[in-house]
Amino acid sequence: MTVRFAILGAGRIGQVHARAVSSIPSAQLVAVAEPFVEAAQRVADKYGCEIREIDAIAASDDIDAVVICTPTDTHAALIEKFAKAGKAVFCEKPVDLNVERVKQALATVEAEGATLMVGFNRRFDPDFMALKAAIDSGKIGDVEMVTITSRDPGAPPASYIKVSGGIFRDMTIHDFDVARWLLGEEVTTVMARGSVLTDPAIGELGDFDSVNVILTTASGKQCTITNSRRATYGYDQRMEVLGSLGMAHAQNTHENTVEVAVEDGYHKAPLLNFFMDRYTMAYANEIAAFVDSIENGTPTPTTGLDGLKALELAEAALESAKTGKAVSLG
Amino acid sequence: MTVRFAILGAGRIGQVHARAVSSIPSAQLVAVAEPFVEAAQRVADKYGCEIREIDAIAASDDIDAVVICTPTDTHAALIEKFAKAGKAVFCEKPVDLNVERVKQALATVEAEGATLMVGFNRRFDPDFMALKAAIDSGKIGDVEMVTITSRDPGAPPASYIKVSGGIFRDMTIHDFDVARWLLGEEVTTVMARGSVLTDPAIGELGDFDSVNVILTTASGKQCTITNSRRATYGYDQRMEVLGSLGMAHAQNTHENTVEVAVEDGYHKAPLLNFFMDRYTMAYANEIAAFVDSIENGTPTPTTGLDGLKALELAEAALESAKTGKAVSLG
Amino acid sequence: MTVRFAILGAGRIGQVHARAVSSIPSAQLVAVAEPFVEAAQRVADKYGCEIREIDAIAASDDIDAVVICTPTDTHAALIEKFAKAGKAVFCEKPVDLNVERVKQALATVEAEGATLMVGFNRRFDPDFMALKAAIDSGKIGDVEMVTITSRDPGAPPASYIKVSGGIFRDMTIHDFDVARWLLGEEVTTVMARGSVLTDPAIGELGDFDSVNVILTTASGKQCTITNSRRATYGYDQRMEVLGSLGMAHAQNTHENTVEVAVEDGYHKAPLLNFFMDRYTMAYANEIAAFVDSIENGTPTPTTGLDGLKALELAEAALESAKTGKAVSLG
Amino acid sequence: MTVRFAILGAGRIGQVHARAVSSIPSAQLVAVAEPFVEAAQRVADKYGCEIREIDAIAASDDIDAVVICTPTDTHAALIEKFAKAGKAVFCEKPVDLNVERVKQALATVEAEGATLMVGFNRRFDPDFMALKAAIDSGKIGDVEMVTITSRDPGAPPASYIKVSGGIFRDMTIHDFDVARWLLGEEVTTVMARGSVLTDPAIGELGDFDSVNVILTTASGKQCTITNSRRATYGYDQRMEVLGSLGMAHAQNTHENTVEVAVEDGYHKAPLLNFFMDRYTMAYANEIAAFVDSIENGTPTPTTGLDGLKALELAEAALESAKTGKAVSLG
Repeated sequence: MTVRFAILGAGRIGQVHARAVSSIPSAQLVAVAEPFVEAAQRVADKYGCEIREIDAIAASDDIDAVVICTPTDTHAALIEKFAKAGKAVFCEKPVDLNVERVKQALATVEAEGATLMVGFNRRFDPDFMALKAAIDSGKIGDVEMVTITSRDPGAPPASYIKVSGGIFRDMTIHDFDVARWLLGEEVTTVMARGSVLTDPAIGELGDFDSVNVILTTASGKQCTITNSRRATYGYDQRMEVLGSLGMAHAQNTHENTVEVAVEDGYHKAPLLNFFMDRYTMAYANEIAAFVDSIENGTPTPTTGLDGLKALELAEAALESAKTGKAVSLG
Repeated sequence: MTVRFAILGAGRIGQVHARAVSSIPSAQLVAVAEPFVEAAQRVADKYGCEIREIDAIAASDDIDAVVICTPTDTHAALIEKFAKAGKAVFCEKPVDLNVERVKQALATVEAEGATLMVGFNRRFDPDFMALKAAIDSGKIGDVEMVTITSRDPGAPPASYIKVSGGIFRDMTIHDFDVARWLLGEEVTTVMARGSVLTDPAIGELGDFDSVNVILTTASGKQCTITNSRRATYGYDQRMEVLGSLGMAHAQNTHENTVEVAVEDGYHKAPLLNFFMDRYTMAYANEIAAFVDSIENGTPTPTTGLDGLKALELAEAALESAKTGKAVSLG
Repeated sequence: MTVRFAILGAGRIGQVHARAVSSIPSAQLVAVAEPFVEAAQRVADKYGCEIREIDAIAASDDIDAVVICTPTDTHAALIEKFAKAGKAVFCEKPVDLNVERVKQALATVEAEGATLMVGFNRRFDPDFMALKAAIDSGKIGDVEMVTITSRDPGAPPASYIKVSGGIFRDMTIHDFDVARWLLGEEVTTVMARGSVLTDPAIGELGDFDSVNVILTTASGKQCTITNSRRATYGYDQRMEVLGSLGMAHAQNTHENTVEVAVEDGYHKAPLLNFFMDRYTMAYANEIAAFVDSIENGTPTPTTGLDGLKALELAEAALESAKTGKAVSLG
Repeated sequence: MTVRFAILGAGRIGQVHARAVSSIPSAQLVAVAEPFVEAAQRVADKYGCEIREIDAIAASDDIDAVVICTPTDTHAALIEKFAKAGKAVFCEKPVDLNVERVKQALATVEAEGATLMVGFNRRFDPDFMALKAAIDSGKIGDVEMVTITSRDPGAPPASYIKVSGGIFRDMTIHDFDVARWLLGEEVTTVMARGSVLTDPAIGELGDFDSVNVILTTASGKQCTITNSRRATYGYDQRMEVLGSLGMAHAQNTHENTVEVAVEDGYHKAPLLNFFMDRYTMAYANEIAAFVDSIENGTPTPTTGLDGLKALELAEAALESAKTGKAVSLG
């Protein structure tokens, strides 16, 4: 069986997914939809696919699945449209910035019995998969305390921050998803603290650039997340899990393995700086997992519910950072 | 000039300080006070010093300085006694478990113009000193976010937990002091979360064994502290500082540097397991710094005020963990 | 300009090169030649190219370049054939096991003014390229001592060892090429020592499985190479260079970055075990460099002469291992 | 029982041993012999011991053991004198630069039934002891290939090189001893290569500053040693052992564990630079082991024979470096 794909949106992340689809033997990239003609043509030329309108794709018989890479505020409506059209849907996070709107979209997905996978790429990174496998193997016993360090090389432009929903919904949301994945239990309480330390302009937009979060589950497991919009030394992505029998952590990826030792000491290259270089394999793996689920009729490894849960944690964190109080969930 | 010392208390930590004093060329261990005769005699024999009563030491002309290693509930009174007796005082942390009692003791010290150093040994560990020097060099710019990981190999006995004042006052207190040292600013807000994950008996004593804390300063700098009473892989002691220009961290100390690679992978020894092995140099360095201050008439690197501030943070953390609210300080 | 390729030989390494050619935008895989029909068809299907006979490829107008992945004893004749046919030639190492035969083939290449690149993949590994760049940057000053550690996970089958020309010509040959590359000077003396330690069967075939070599240049720079046919912990590939101002080394690549710490210590995954996984990027990069040279009319980064020099070092090493004497070259 | 010591020679290494003796509970430093009065007095004052003439020490009833730290050319005669005087003898390496003279001294030791330990400090370094323990545990199977990297921060003064016997006898001799220790078999063949790369003045003295050696045992085990008189990044001391089941290596010791990550990458402190800092524990441990042997009447862990064997390897290496031929031993 070959799963026939359309990519909706041919921007940076759309191109990443186009390449991922093309590299999977049992998948075929049939169409791309993109309002900017040059961008659409580039993808069409590179991967030998057609350019189609979104409505045409929804009506196409030769499309089994779509990958939604359009702006965030279109996600929920596109999910609904393609769920109704009987296509399997892969949607970049977040489903929407509004929890109610997300719930509405998920209700449609459920009503249609549609397949929806939300793109939490970190779960598909080989190193983090190895970390999860180490936990699942029982080597470190019961998970007790998770520590997630996630720092971007630099802040996105102000134009993005204005519409991103803020650091918790845009950046920490990945860590909220990872926290749930590694804790293996739902979070019941959120405490958070936000500061503006790297750029006052971010504060003027009402956002933070430096945050810390403590999550707690019903059984008392805890997770801390530390985020900054600035890490001069690269894209800092670490996870650590303390369990009853030991500790496991996934380390960062440097540009190369060379170490230079001179009179003032030992020197290594900075970390991979760009999220697409850092998560090349993760993007390929997540699409492969989506194809696999479609082929086998099995649940996707990440779902619309995961998208909802992460967004709820982001909202709770924002409230806690504003009020100075722990916020309880469900 | 030779600084002539008496050690008050010949338990485990008293012996550590006796050795430290003996190894400093410009210091001399003259007397030890200890109710258990055998313990007192062992120190007297090993270091060639006399056994004296505490009051006799306070009245001795041949004693310039004392090191207080007696049980916590005697610290404040001994500080007052020896401050009044004109001796320089080094006191193991904490000064007292009660903030008001600490303030009272410090008032006496101030009124007498006495010298009081509180034993926050971590500031004197060579690796952490190198970390602080890296910050002070300006290499990583302005400090923004501090992350302290501190896990004990195992919990102390229940008898100790009953009188220790709880994990924040007994264990995290070291990290509170380090946080102030590395942040370079006073903490204004404390958020904390506590769980019982390693041993229900700890919960029955009304204490936690697993805690996370977020500290914030007036300018928005933040520090997270993660503590557990159990780390099967050794005594886990790490500090990391993110600044505007980069990041610096001090790594753990393994038992040795050997790596063994076999079919299932690469293996290294666990961490040093015992705090006295891990902090051997720190204990020697802190007494040397105390002697140095006495000889040169300069302020001690840690003071009674440091002891008070750390205790206030511990109380605030406990309150936050109980109420789920951020607690503001001064 | 698009460089049109034929792959000669569709075995394991032929498939690697077929993929590399296909992934380069300015290259096109037009044809494959392979006596085993199924293997040929698999490549033809996967990359959408034709199956042709070798002579037909030599006569084809739509082929600019060939990649020779056939058995070693056919290399020299194919190089000559395709040099005469006006095709650019990329040949897997070695050109031939006999130095005179290599010289003869190179003479034809030179007479025809043909392009010949020999596949020393390690020069194209990103980590080793970063090592070479560190040397070329002058950071470690003048190169003085090179140390190459190269251990295979396991020995090839006896059938291969019988025709491989022995460990020096088959395995160490890569290290001889790297040594010349890193030393930046020709080797003038070779000392070597060989043992049979991993499998007596290798000794019965007249070969060694464990060797050490010392190379010296005219100016006294030295290089040691240590090889073993067995490393249970993966494919061990390290290079270290000591210079007048410091040292640089490229470290091994583990399967992942996860570290698990439990009661008996810290554990990491073994090294990547398979040369094709370890050198995935190197194989892609070397074909890209070949295409680049053809497009720009520039010399290839590795040449037939590099193939010859490495083979001469292998012969000298074998002689030294047998006689116990240093062997001088040119 | 207390072992009563005299130290012969109060230079740099004599002071190290004086401290080591003083720190052992069951040892007592009774006397020091040293022609420079000030140096002798400093040791006498610091450790509360007497100054005595060498002959007086040999005749003393209150001395059980001596540590010989005088110039190399006095070692053999002092060993003989004190063996005859019934004292246990610890002698710094080498026993003598001349193999015949060493044999003569060892014959006297044997005839007298005396105890002689030669100071190969590296065997007593905690990291190298852990490496040896890993081998002895069987974890890596049978030892096959040993790799020793040993680089001094800088060359000794010309005055020392003139009398040191050259790099093989003075510097590599430590590595020869370690090679025998780790191989667990006697060496039967030596190949060596020497260059002058760091300072022409060393060449003018007839010595090398950069050498590589290959040792082979009767069963074919091999060891490479790489030495340089210059390592700008500190005192580089590494050992690696490949066995039939895996590999074990002891890594270097940095000045501290701090890592600083900034825009151009990650930075760590250089290695400990001075042999006395690097081997502080080794010096203490070797004297403790000597005391232990005396107390228990057990053989010393290193012996005069070890000193002889290492010297023979040094001579063989020198011959091989000069002739370009493998040199066979015994």
